[in-house]
Amino acid sequence: MSKLEKAIVSIVEVFEEYAGKDEQKSQLSNAELRDLIKTELKSPEFKDKVDPENIKEVMEELDKNHDGEVNFREFSQCIAGLARGYYKKKHGNEERRGRGRDK
Amino acid sequence: MSKLEKAIVSIVEVFEEYAGKDEQKSQLSNAELRDLIKTELKSPEFKDKVDPENIKEVMEELDKNHDGEVNFREFSQCIAGLARGYYKKKHGNEERRGRGRDK
Repeated sequence: MSKLEKAIVSIVEVFEEYAGKDEQKSQLSNAELRDLIKTELKSPEFKDKVDPENIKEVMEELDKNHDGEVNFREFSQCIAGLARGYYKKKHGNEERRGRGRDK
Repeated sequence: MSKLEKAIVSIVEVFEEYAGKDEQKSQLSNAELRDLIKTELKSPEFKDKVDPENIKEVMEELDKNHDGEVNFREFSQCIAGLARGYYKKKHGNEERRGRGRDK
């Protein structure tokens, strides 16, 4: 498997590991999401993005369908957002260049 | 770094590697995207999802802002989509369960 494929598989495995802790195995509850963030997102690069002490807000932000839990679709969007944050931090706003130009 | 953080960093690095091949280093051109797909997404689990022989279609699908290239935001959404496909294949449509149910 390539590096990119391994990354995709890892994202799925981490979700499965935490979502699988209670009966609703295809969703992250409040407690599972807090656990996941506390354990898996504690490096300085990612730590400030999602705050486990503020899990209610994080949950509201991620839980797009408002069912009180985070499903894999919602989780994958969160990870994409974290990746964008990391990319932007590394590159500034280059991402935008080439579109509007004079800035 | 945790497994999840490493996965996020890998996604950024793969994008940088391929997007960096031409002058427009923050975007994947047609050729760069084809290269990336051919090299990084060839395992059977992912192969059918994006077809390098049909790069024009893939590009149209990913290039949400229609500037002819794929920026990191568009790429991260693609990866989230691939992860969802992989998750669904593994779990069937469980993801949906729990929504319709009255709880």
